[in-house]
Amino acid sequence: MTRGQATAVEAEWQRFDPLEMTPLLSAALDAFYEHGFHGTSVRDIVGRVGQTVPSLYYHHGSKEGAFADLLELGTGEVAWRVKEAAAAAEGPVEKFVNVIETIVLHMAHRTRLAALDPELRHLSSESRRRYAERRKEIENLVADIVEDGAATGVFAVSVPSETARALLGMCQSIARWYQPDGPLGPRELADRYVDIALNTVSARGRRRLTTARQAAARR
Amino acid sequence: MTRGQATAVEAEWQRFDPLEMTPLLSAALDAFYEHGFHGTSVRDIVGRVGQTVPSLYYHHGSKEGAFADLLELGTGEVAWRVKEAAAAAEGPVEKFVNVIETIVLHMAHRTRLAALDPELRHLSSESRRRYAERRKEIENLVADIVEDGAATGVFAVSVPSETARALLGMCQSIARWYQPDGPLGPRELADRYVDIALNTVSARGRRRLTTARQAAARR
Repeated sequence: MTRGQATAVEAEWQRFDPLEMTPLLSAALDAFYEHGFHGTSVRDIVGRVGQTVPSLYYHHGSKEGAFADLLELGTGEVAWRVKEAAAAAEGPVEKFVNVIETIVLHMAHRTRLAALDPELRHLSSESRRRYAERRKEIENLVADIVEDGAATGVFAVSVPSETARALLGMCQSIARWYQPDGPLGPRELADRYVDIALNTVSARGRRRLTTARQAAARR
Repeated sequence: MTRGQATAVEAEWQRFDPLEMTPLLSAALDAFYEHGFHGTSVRDIVGRVGQTVPSLYYHHGSKEGAFADLLELGTGEVAWRVKEAAAAAEGPVEKFVNVIETIVLHMAHRTRLAALDPELRHLSSESRRRYAERRKEIENLVADIVEDGAATGVFAVSVPSETARALLGMCQSIARWYQPDGPLGPRELADRYVDIALNTVSARGRRRLTTARQAAARR
């Protein structure tokens, strides 16, 4: 099950260092994660790091601004990783594998950021717009890969865009239950979801592909 | 794509009449849906239906009690439907189809109730326990069906419990985006997700199965 992340050389999009964040933004993430958007006050946030209310307004404009900046941090990061992951591969099957792997690794390494997503609907339409665009970008990228695979006969799906949306929902839901200190490491989780996702698109020759990936990881 | 729901006789677990709810609980659902658990006050809720704060305390104990009662309404309903749906079928493939169909129909017909799910983590551990048990019950039922199908060779999956969890996450995520007045009706959505889910478990002979279902619907 393990793919030997210690031996395989990781590309930049596969490597997750701790996310760099100001203490203020980090405090905002903790507060929003614990109490939700509406349950968090600006005073709660700044009190965690001994800062003042005007300091938050100066850096983020408002509580909503801080929330939107956190969402942007998360989706901005996953967006560049996904694009890199797709560009690093050739053909729909490998692109698909790289992209699903990246999204799942993101969910496992950035669980708290990803868990903010359902709170989105409490924000103003302006704050939502940018986030929705980012998500749509990723969904379209996955849909294009699925469509490409279906067109070339390596995948078999009825409605590529629906399958892409369902797969993203499946990955997004990881943030609901994943525990970073639990029994399942990010790499093992990603392997399981790549396997499940390849089934979902009825990928041909997937046993051969999995073996090739495992061999590559052992090198 | 349509399966002619007007002509096919629907079982009780397939029929979704508007959910019966007291005006107070209905107001609580509206408020929680719009503003989240922490963003809603008891005064907000009772003000929507011209009732008093003590009235909510009398019927639901607390704001959290009202929220927990709504969750129980939703998961209690989906739990009995799923059990009926599984019991009405024979063999893992048909059971699987019935259960996925039921969960998706629930998401489409009870979108607002289902959308409360991510707020769960703001509740006390006691309120969470019962809900978590209900969810686990459904997840185990799906996992058992997937395992059964894998054991008898009609499904091919690596880790049945992980596939079951992923499928439930996929279905749950429908509540994030589904619009009851949008272009996709509950029945069409359920058909699409049954199709996707059958791929996810690599169901054998699925084309034959789909045709048989369509023929049954036309009868």
